[in-house]
Amino acid sequence: MGENIGGTARVMWNFGLDRLRLVAPRDGWPNRKAVTVSSGGGQVLDKCLVHHTLEEAIQDLNLVFATTIRTRKFSKEVFNPYEGMKLIRDLIRKGKSVGIIFGSERAGLESKEIAIANAIITVPVNSKFSSLNLSHAVAVLAYEWFKISEHANDDIKRVISDLNITNKSEVNSFIQNLKIELSRSGYFWPEDKRESLNRNIENLFHRMPLTGPDIRTLFGIIKSISKHRDG
Amino acid sequence: MGENIGGTARVMWNFGLDRLRLVAPRDGWPNRKAVTVSSGGGQVLDKCLVHHTLEEAIQDLNLVFATTIRTRKFSKEVFNPYEGMKLIRDLIRKGKSVGIIFGSERAGLESKEIAIANAIITVPVNSKFSSLNLSHAVAVLAYEWFKISEHANDDIKRVISDLNITNKSEVNSFIQNLKIELSRSGYFWPEDKRESLNRNIENLFHRMPLTGPDIRTLFGIIKSISKHRDG
Repeated sequence: MGENIGGTARVMWNFGLDRLRLVAPRDGWPNRKAVTVSSGGGQVLDKCLVHHTLEEAIQDLNLVFATTIRTRKFSKEVFNPYEGMKLIRDLIRKGKSVGIIFGSERAGLESKEIAIANAIITVPVNSKFSSLNLSHAVAVLAYEWFKISEHANDDIKRVISDLNITNKSEVNSFIQNLKIELSRSGYFWPEDKRESLNRNIENLFHRMPLTGPDIRTLFGIIKSISKHRDG
Repeated sequence: MGENIGGTARVMWNFGLDRLRLVAPRDGWPNRKAVTVSSGGGQVLDKCLVHHTLEEAIQDLNLVFATTIRTRKFSKEVFNPYEGMKLIRDLIRKGKSVGIIFGSERAGLESKEIAIANAIITVPVNSKFSSLNLSHAVAVLAYEWFKISEHANDDIKRVISDLNITNKSEVNSFIQNLKIELSRSGYFWPEDKRESLNRNIENLFHRMPLTGPDIRTLFGIIKSISKHRDG
Protein backbone atom coordinates (compact mmCIF):
# COMPACT_ATOMS: atom_id res chain seq x y z
CA MET A 1 0.00 0.00 0.00
CA GLY A 2 1.23 3.44 -0.97
CA GLU A 3 0.29 4.87 2.42
CA ASN A 4 2.47 2.38 4.23
CA ILE A 5 5.43 2.91 1.94
CA GLY A 6 5.10 6.68 2.35
CA GLY A 7 4.76 6.41 6.11
CA THR A 8 7.78 4.13 6.22
CA ALA A 9 9.91 6.54 4.17
CA ARG A 10 8.88 9.43 6.38
CA VAL A 11 9.70 7.75 9.67
CA MET A 12 12.95 6.31 8.32
CA TRP A 13 14.19 9.81 7.53
CA ASN A 14 12.88 11.08 10.88
CA PHE A 15 15.42 8.73 12.41
CA GLY A 16 18.21 9.33 9.91
CA LEU A 17 17.74 6.24 7.74
CA ASP A 18 17.47 6.63 3.97
CA ARG A 19 18.10 3.33 2.23
CA LEU A 20 14.80 1.72 1.35
CA ARG A 21 14.29 -1.24 -0.92
CA LEU A 22 10.84 -2.24 -2.09
CA VAL A 23 9.93 -5.73 -3.21
CA ALA A 24 7.12 -5.93 -5.78
CA PRO A 25 4.95 -3.07 -4.45
CA ARG A 26 1.27 -4.05 -4.69
CA ASP A 27 0.10 -0.92 -6.51
CA GLY A 28 3.09 -0.55 -8.81
CA TRP A 29 5.78 2.11 -8.71
CA PRO A 30 6.04 5.09 -8.52
CA ASN A 31 3.01 5.65 -6.32
CA ARG A 32 1.43 9.04 -5.79
CA LYS A 33 -0.08 8.20 -2.39
CA ALA A 34 3.33 7.14 -1.12
CA VAL A 35 4.80 10.50 -2.11
CA THR A 36 2.01 12.42 -0.37
CA VAL A 37 2.28 10.46 2.86
CA SER A 38 6.09 10.55 2.90
CA SER A 39 5.94 14.31 3.57
CA GLY A 40 9.49 15.60 4.08
CA GLY A 41 10.84 12.08 3.67
CA GLY A 42 10.37 12.16 -0.08
CA GLN A 43 14.07 11.88 -0.77
CA VAL A 44 13.99 8.36 0.70
CA LEU A 45 11.47 7.44 -1.99
CA ASP A 46 13.43 9.22 -4.70
CA LYS A 47 16.39 6.98 -4.22
CA CYS A 48 14.67 3.79 -3.11
CA LEU A 49 15.35 0.64 -5.08
CA VAL A 50 12.55 -1.52 -6.44
CA HIS A 51 13.06 -5.26 -6.83
CA HIS A 52 10.95 -8.10 -8.18
CA THR A 53 11.90 -10.59 -5.52
CA LEU A 54 13.22 -10.60 -1.98
CA GLU A 55 16.21 -12.67 -3.08
CA GLU A 56 17.17 -10.01 -5.58
CA ALA A 57 16.70 -7.23 -3.04
CA ILE A 58 19.11 -8.67 -0.52
CA GLN A 59 21.74 -10.26 -2.75
CA ASP A 60 24.51 -7.76 -1.97
CA LEU A 61 23.94 -7.78 1.81
CA ASN A 62 26.05 -9.71 4.28
CA LEU A 63 23.33 -10.29 6.82
CA VAL A 64 19.58 -9.76 7.01
CA PHE A 65 17.21 -9.69 9.96
CA ALA A 66 13.54 -10.61 9.60
CA THR A 67 10.92 -8.78 11.66
CA THR A 68 8.13 -11.01 12.94
CA ILE A 69 6.28 -11.86 16.11
CA ARG A 70 6.20 -15.53 15.12
CA THR A 71 9.47 -16.24 16.83
CA ARG A 72 9.00 -19.79 18.00
CA LYS A 73 8.56 -21.50 14.67
CA PHE A 74 12.07 -20.85 13.49
CA SER A 75 15.29 -22.01 15.03
CA LYS A 76 16.89 -18.62 14.72
CA GLU A 77 18.20 -16.27 17.28
CA VAL A 78 15.60 -13.69 18.36
CA PHE A 79 16.45 -10.11 19.36
CA ASN A 80 14.33 -7.33 20.76
CA PRO A 81 14.58 -4.01 18.86
CA TYR A 82 17.25 -2.56 21.12
CA GLU A 83 19.46 -5.66 21.08
CA GLY A 84 18.93 -6.09 17.37
CA MET A 85 19.87 -2.54 16.48
CA LYS A 86 22.91 -2.67 18.72
CA LEU A 87 24.08 -5.83 17.01
CA ILE A 88 23.48 -4.28 13.59
CA ARG A 89 25.46 -1.20 14.53
CA ASP A 90 28.37 -3.41 15.57
CA LEU A 91 28.16 -5.40 12.35
CA ILE A 92 28.14 -2.23 10.26
CA ARG A 93 31.15 -0.94 12.16
CA LYS A 94 32.91 -4.11 11.15
CA GLY A 95 32.20 -3.32 7.51
CA LYS A 96 29.17 -5.54 6.98
CA SER A 97 26.14 -4.60 4.90
CA VAL A 98 23.00 -5.36 6.87
CA GLY A 99 19.32 -5.30 5.93
CA ILE A 100 16.08 -5.58 7.86
CA ILE A 101 13.09 -7.24 6.19
CA PHE A 102 9.55 -6.09 6.93
CA GLY A 103 6.50 -7.95 5.72
CA SER A 104 3.44 -6.58 4.01
CA GLU A 105 0.74 -4.89 6.03
CA ARG A 106 -1.75 -7.71 5.59
CA ALA A 107 0.24 -10.85 6.13
CA GLY A 108 3.58 -9.94 7.62
CA LEU A 109 6.49 -12.09 6.55
CA GLU A 110 5.88 -15.60 5.28
CA SER A 111 7.88 -18.53 6.54
CA LYS A 112 9.91 -18.78 3.37
CA GLU A 113 10.82 -15.09 3.66
CA ILE A 114 11.87 -15.52 7.25
CA ALA A 115 13.90 -18.54 6.25
CA ILE A 116 16.25 -16.30 4.31
CA ALA A 117 17.19 -14.28 7.39
CA ASN A 118 20.19 -14.74 9.65
CA ALA A 119 18.17 -13.85 12.73
CA ILE A 120 14.86 -12.41 13.89
CA ILE A 121 13.98 -9.07 15.44
CA THR A 122 10.68 -8.96 17.27
CA VAL A 123 8.84 -5.98 18.71
CA PRO A 124 7.26 -6.79 22.08
CA VAL A 125 3.49 -6.24 21.76
CA ASN A 126 0.19 -6.76 23.50
CA SER A 127 -0.65 -10.45 23.14
CA LYS A 128 -4.30 -9.49 22.65
CA PHE A 129 -3.54 -7.40 19.56
CA SER A 130 -0.17 -8.00 18.03
CA SER A 131 -0.74 -6.80 14.47
CA LEU A 132 1.48 -3.75 14.02
CA ASN A 133 1.01 -1.40 11.13
CA LEU A 134 4.05 -1.67 8.84
CA SER A 135 5.20 1.91 9.34
CA HIS A 136 4.76 1.58 13.13
CA ALA A 137 7.06 -1.44 13.16
CA VAL A 138 9.59 0.52 11.11
CA ALA A 139 9.14 3.47 13.50
CA VAL A 140 10.07 1.38 16.52
CA LEU A 141 13.19 -0.10 14.94
CA ALA A 142 14.30 3.18 13.38
CA TYR A 143 13.83 4.91 16.73
CA GLU A 144 15.96 2.32 18.50
CA TRP A 145 18.55 2.71 15.76
CA PHE A 146 18.68 6.46 16.17
CA LYS A 147 18.88 6.20 19.96
CA ILE A 148 21.95 4.00 19.89
CA SER A 149 23.64 6.08 17.25
CA GLU A 150 25.99 8.11 19.34
CA HIS A 151 24.67 11.64 19.37
CA ALA A 152 20.96 11.01 19.60
CA ASN A 153 20.58 11.91 23.24
CA ASP A 154 23.14 14.68 23.51
CA ASP A 155 20.55 17.31 22.84
CA ILE A 156 18.22 16.11 25.53
CA LYS A 157 20.91 15.87 28.16
CA ARG A 158 21.93 19.40 27.41
CA VAL A 159 18.40 20.69 27.77
CA ILE A 160 17.95 18.99 31.11
CA SER A 161 21.10 20.55 32.51
CA ASP A 162 20.05 23.89 31.02
CA LEU A 163 17.15 24.10 33.43
CA ASN A 164 18.80 26.43 35.90
CA ILE A 165 17.27 25.89 39.27
CA THR A 166 17.97 29.04 41.22
CA ASN A 167 19.90 29.09 44.47
CA LYS A 168 18.36 29.07 47.91
CA SER A 169 19.27 32.65 48.73
CA GLU A 170 17.04 33.85 45.89
CA VAL A 171 14.22 31.64 47.09
CA ASN A 172 14.73 32.94 50.62
CA SER A 173 14.73 36.54 49.58
CA PHE A 174 11.46 35.99 47.77
CA ILE A 175 10.00 34.27 50.83
CA GLN A 176 11.13 37.12 53.11
CA ASN A 177 9.56 39.66 50.79
CA LEU A 178 6.36 37.65 50.64
CA LYS A 179 6.17 37.38 54.41
CA ILE A 180 6.50 41.14 54.80
CA GLU A 181 3.63 41.72 52.39
CA LEU A 182 1.54 39.03 54.06
CA SER A 183 2.22 40.49 57.47
CA ARG A 184 1.05 43.91 56.32
CA SER A 185 -2.08 42.37 54.89
CA GLY A 186 -3.03 40.58 58.09
CA TYR A 187 -2.34 37.09 56.84
CA PHE A 188 -0.71 35.89 60.03
CA TRP A 189 -3.75 35.85 62.19
CA PRO A 190 -4.43 34.74 64.85
CA GLU A 191 -0.95 35.29 66.19
CA ASP A 192 -0.54 31.71 67.46
CA LYS A 193 -0.86 30.44 63.90
CA ARG A 194 1.99 32.61 62.63
CA GLU A 195 4.63 29.95 63.01
CA SER A 196 2.74 27.21 61.19
CA LEU A 197 1.68 29.60 58.43
CA ASN A 198 5.29 30.65 58.02
CA ARG A 199 6.44 27.04 57.89
CA ASN A 200 3.79 26.32 55.30
CA ILE A 201 5.04 29.02 52.97
CA GLU A 202 8.66 28.03 53.39
CA ASN A 203 7.89 24.41 52.65
CA LEU A 204 5.90 25.27 49.59
CA PHE A 205 8.38 27.51 47.82
CA HIS A 206 11.49 25.62 48.81
CA ARG A 207 10.05 22.38 47.47
CA MET A 208 9.41 23.81 44.02
CA PRO A 209 12.02 23.55 41.26
CA LEU A 210 12.18 27.32 40.73
CA THR A 211 14.43 29.02 38.19
CA GLY A 212 15.74 32.60 38.30
CA PRO A 213 13.03 33.83 35.91
CA ASP A 214 10.42 32.05 38.05
CA ILE A 215 11.60 34.01 41.08
CA ARG A 216 11.36 37.28 39.17
CA THR A 217 7.84 36.38 38.03
CA LEU A 218 6.82 35.62 41.61
CA PHE A 219 8.35 38.89 42.85
CA GLY A 220 6.46 40.71 40.11
CA ILE A 221 3.15 39.10 41.05
CA ILE A 222 3.41 40.03 44.71
CA LYS A 223 4.72 43.49 43.94
CA SER A 224 1.93 44.20 41.47
CA ILE A 225 -0.85 43.16 43.80
CA SER A 226 0.54 44.83 46.91
CA LYS A 227 1.70 48.04 45.23
CA HIS A 228 -1.72 48.62 43.74
CA ARG A 229 -3.13 48.17 47.22
CA ASP A 230 -0.90 50.85 48.66
CA GLY A 231 -1.54 53.29 45.84
CA MET B 1 -7.35 13.70 10.67
CA GLY B 2 -9.26 10.44 10.94
CA GLU B 3 -6.29 8.42 9.66
CA ASN B 4 -4.05 9.70 12.42
CA ILE B 5 -6.63 9.06 15.12
CA GLY B 6 -7.17 5.54 13.80
CA GLY B 7 -3.44 4.87 13.56
CA THR B 8 -2.98 6.18 17.07
CA ALA B 9 -5.74 3.95 18.47
CA ARG B 10 -4.27 0.93 16.73
CA VAL B 11 -0.72 1.40 17.97
CA MET B 12 -1.91 2.28 21.48
CA TRP B 13 -3.64 -1.06 21.74
CA ASN B 14 -0.64 -2.82 20.15
CA PHE B 15 1.22 -1.68 23.22
CA GLY B 16 -1.54 -2.25 25.76
CA LEU B 17 -2.81 1.31 26.12
CA ASP B 18 -6.50 2.02 25.74
CA ARG B 19 -7.38 5.39 27.23
CA LEU B 20 -7.57 7.96 24.48
CA ARG B 21 -8.96 11.47 24.80
CA LEU B 22 -9.58 13.58 21.73
CA VAL B 23 -9.70 17.36 21.77
CA ALA B 24 -11.93 18.94 19.10
CA PRO B 25 -11.21 16.45 16.29
CA ARG B 26 -10.93 18.36 13.00
CA ASP B 27 -13.40 16.26 11.04
CA GLY B 28 -15.94 15.75 13.80
CA TRP B 29 -16.71 12.57 15.68
CA PRO B 30 -17.30 9.69 15.13
CA ASN B 31 -15.11 9.36 12.06
CA ARG B 32 -15.35 6.44 9.64
CA LYS B 33 -11.76 6.72 8.41
CA ALA B 34 -10.49 6.50 11.97
CA VAL B 35 -12.43 3.28 12.49
CA THR B 36 -11.04 1.72 9.30
CA VAL B 37 -7.45 2.59 10.09
CA SER B 38 -7.71 1.55 13.73
CA SER B 39 -8.03 -2.07 12.59
CA GLY B 40 -8.10 -4.31 15.68
CA GLY B 41 -7.69 -1.27 17.92
CA GLY B 42 -11.31 -0.21 17.42
CA GLN B 43 -12.15 -0.72 21.07
CA VAL B 44 -9.84 2.17 21.93
CA LEU B 45 -11.99 4.38 19.73
CA ASP B 46 -15.23 2.94 21.14
CA LYS B 47 -14.39 4.16 24.59
CA CYS B 48 -12.38 7.27 23.79
CA LEU B 49 -13.52 10.54 25.29
CA VAL B 50 -14.08 13.63 23.17
CA HIS B 51 -13.54 17.08 24.67
CA HIS B 52 -13.98 20.61 23.41
CA THR B 53 -10.83 22.00 24.98
CA LEU B 54 -7.52 20.73 26.24
CA GLU B 55 -8.27 22.19 29.68
CA GLU B 56 -11.43 20.13 29.88
CA ALA B 57 -9.63 17.00 28.70
CA ILE B 58 -7.00 17.07 31.43
CA GLN B 59 -8.90 18.50 34.37
CA ASP B 60 -8.99 15.29 36.42
CA LEU B 61 -5.32 14.45 35.84
CA ASN B 62 -2.58 15.06 38.37
CA LEU B 63 0.23 15.57 35.90
CA VAL B 64 0.51 15.95 32.17
CA PHE B 65 3.48 15.68 29.84
CA ALA B 66 3.63 17.55 26.55
CA THR B 67 5.33 15.98 23.54
CA THR B 68 7.33 18.44 21.46
CA ILE B 69 10.72 18.88 19.91
CA ARG B 70 10.71 22.57 20.77
CA THR B 71 12.33 21.96 24.11
CA ARG B 72 14.40 25.09 24.58
CA LYS B 73 11.64 27.64 24.66
CA PHE B 74 10.15 26.42 27.89
CA SER B 75 11.75 26.23 31.28
CA LYS B 76 10.40 22.77 31.88
CA GLU B 77 12.21 19.57 32.50
CA VAL B 78 12.72 17.50 29.34
CA PHE B 79 12.70 13.71 29.24
CA ASN B 80 13.47 11.30 26.45
CA PRO B 81 10.78 8.66 25.82
CA TYR B 82 12.39 6.02 28.02
CA GLU B 83 12.99 8.32 30.98
CA GLY B 84 9.57 9.88 30.56
CA MET B 85 7.71 6.59 30.49
CA LYS B 86 9.65 5.30 33.46
CA LEU B 87 8.77 8.39 35.43
CA ILE B 88 5.12 8.06 34.44
CA ARG B 89 5.07 4.43 35.50
CA ASP B 90 6.41 5.42 38.90
CA LEU B 91 3.85 8.19 39.25
CA ILE B 92 1.01 5.83 38.34
CA ARG B 93 2.24 3.31 40.87
CA LYS B 94 1.92 6.03 43.46
CA GLY B 95 -1.70 6.51 42.50
CA LYS B 96 -1.36 9.52 40.22
CA SER B 97 -3.37 10.07 37.06
CA VAL B 98 -1.02 11.03 34.27
CA GLY B 99 -1.67 12.17 30.70
CA ILE B 100 0.48 12.70 27.64
CA ILE B 101 -0.50 15.46 25.22
CA PHE B 102 0.17 15.08 21.50
CA GLY B 103 -0.31 17.91 19.04
CA SER B 104 -2.09 17.87 15.73
CA GLU B 105 -0.35 16.43 12.69
CA ARG B 106 0.07 19.79 11.04
CA ALA B 107 1.24 22.10 13.79
CA GLY B 108 2.22 20.01 16.79
CA LEU B 109 1.53 21.56 20.16
CA GLU B 110 1.23 25.31 20.52
CA SER B 111 3.05 27.20 23.24
CA LYS B 112 -0.12 27.74 25.23
CA GLU B 113 -0.80 24.00 25.13
CA ILE B 114 2.70 23.21 26.29
CA ALA B 115 2.35 25.78 29.07
CA ILE B 116 -0.20 23.57 30.79
CA ALA B 117 2.23 20.67 31.13
CA ASN B 118 4.38 19.73 34.10
CA ALA B 119 7.22 18.58 31.88
CA ILE B 120 8.14 17.73 28.31
CA ILE B 121 8.82 14.43 26.58
CA THR B 122 10.79 14.68 23.37
CA VAL B 123 11.58 11.97 20.83
CA PRO B 124 15.16 12.26 19.57
CA VAL B 125 14.99 12.77 15.80
CA ASN B 126 17.05 13.64 12.77
CA SER B 127 17.70 17.36 12.94
CA LYS B 128 17.27 17.52 9.15
CA PHE B 129 13.70 16.22 9.30
CA SER B 130 12.12 16.31 12.71
CA SER B 131 8.43 16.31 11.81
CA LEU B 132 7.05 13.02 13.14
CA ASN B 133 3.69 11.72 12.03
CA LEU B 134 1.31 11.80 15.02
CA SER B 135 0.82 8.05 15.19
CA HIS B 136 4.57 7.46 14.89
CA ALA B 137 5.19 9.69 17.89
CA VAL B 138 2.53 7.76 19.79
CA ALA B 139 4.11 4.49 18.59
CA VAL B 140 7.48 5.38 20.06
CA LEU B 141 6.10 6.40 23.45
CA ALA B 142 3.68 3.49 23.63
CA TYR B 143 6.48 1.10 22.74
CA GLU B 144 8.70 2.48 25.49
CA TRP B 145 5.76 2.21 27.86
CA PHE B 146 5.16 -1.42 27.00
CA LYS B 147 8.83 -2.28 27.32
CA ILE B 148 8.98 -0.75 30.75
CA SER B 149 5.79 -2.28 32.05
CA GLU B 150 6.89 -5.69 30.78
CA HIS B 151 10.23 -5.66 32.45
CA ALA B 152 9.07 -4.44 35.80
CA ASN B 153 12.40 -3.32 37.16
CA ASP B 154 12.50 -1.38 40.33
CA ASP B 155 15.40 0.98 39.84
CA ILE B 156 13.40 4.09 40.33
CA LYS B 157 15.71 6.77 39.08
CA ARG B 158 13.63 9.78 39.77
CA VAL B 159 10.88 10.56 42.16
CA ILE B 160 8.97 13.77 41.63
CA SER B 161 7.42 13.38 45.03
CA ASP B 162 5.44 11.17 47.32
CA LEU B 163 2.98 13.94 47.82
CA ASN B 164 -0.52 14.19 46.53
CA ILE B 165 -0.19 16.22 43.39
CA THR B 166 -3.45 18.04 42.82
CA ASN B 167 -5.39 17.86 39.58
CA LYS B 168 -5.14 20.34 36.74
CA SER B 169 -8.55 21.89 37.29
CA GLU B 170 -7.43 23.11 40.73
CA VAL B 171 -4.24 24.53 39.28
CA ASN B 172 -6.24 26.20 36.55
CA SER B 173 -8.72 27.70 38.93
CA PHE B 174 -5.88 29.16 40.99
CA ILE B 175 -4.29 30.58 37.84
CA GLN B 176 -7.60 32.10 36.75
CA ASN B 177 -8.04 33.69 40.13
CA LEU B 178 -4.49 35.01 40.10
CA LYS B 179 -4.94 36.50 36.64
CA ILE B 180 -8.06 38.35 37.75
CA GLU B 181 -6.22 39.86 40.69
CA LEU B 182 -3.23 40.72 38.56
CA SER B 183 -5.46 42.29 35.95
CA ARG B 184 -7.07 44.49 38.56
CA SER B 185 -3.67 45.52 39.84
CA GLY B 186 -2.41 46.61 36.44
CA TYR B 187 0.10 43.76 36.07
CA PHE B 188 -0.67 43.16 32.41
CA TRP B 189 0.80 46.34 31.08
CA PRO B 190 1.56 47.34 28.40
CA GLU B 191 -1.27 45.47 26.72
CA ASP B 192 0.96 43.84 24.08
CA LYS B 193 2.83 42.03 26.83
CA ARG B 194 -0.34 40.47 28.25
CA GLU B 195 -0.03 37.25 26.32
CA SER B 196 3.57 36.56 27.22
CA LEU B 197 2.96 37.50 30.85
CA ASN B 198 0.00 35.13 30.91
CA ARG B 199 2.07 32.35 29.35
CA ASN B 200 4.76 32.97 31.90
CA ILE B 201 2.39 32.48 34.79
CA GLU B 202 0.84 29.36 33.26
CA ASN B 203 4.23 27.84 32.64
CA LEU B 204 5.36 28.56 36.15
CA PHE B 205 2.45 27.13 38.11
CA HIS B 206 1.72 24.19 35.82
CA ARG B 207 5.30 23.07 36.04
CA MET B 208 5.30 22.93 39.81
CA PRO B 209 4.36 19.72 41.63
CA LEU B 210 1.58 21.38 43.61
CA THR B 211 -0.54 19.58 46.17
CA GLY B 212 -4.07 20.44 47.27
CA PRO B 213 -2.79 22.19 50.42
CA ASP B 214 -0.30 24.11 48.26
CA ILE B 215 -3.15 25.39 46.14
CA ARG B 216 -5.05 26.49 49.24
CA THR B 217 -1.96 28.23 50.55
CA LEU B 218 -1.47 30.03 47.24
CA PHE B 219 -5.12 31.04 47.15
CA GLY B 220 -4.78 32.32 50.69
CA ILE B 221 -1.70 34.35 49.86
CA ILE B 222 -3.30 36.10 46.90
CA LYS B 223 -6.58 36.57 48.72
CA SER B 224 -4.90 38.05 51.75
CA ILE B 225 -2.83 40.56 49.80
CA SER B 226 -5.58 41.61 47.41
CA LYS B 227 -8.39 41.69 49.97
CA HIS B 228 -6.47 43.96 52.28
CA ARG B 229 -5.90 46.19 49.28
CA ASP B 230 -9.63 46.50 48.64
CA GLY B 231 -10.51 47.11 52.28
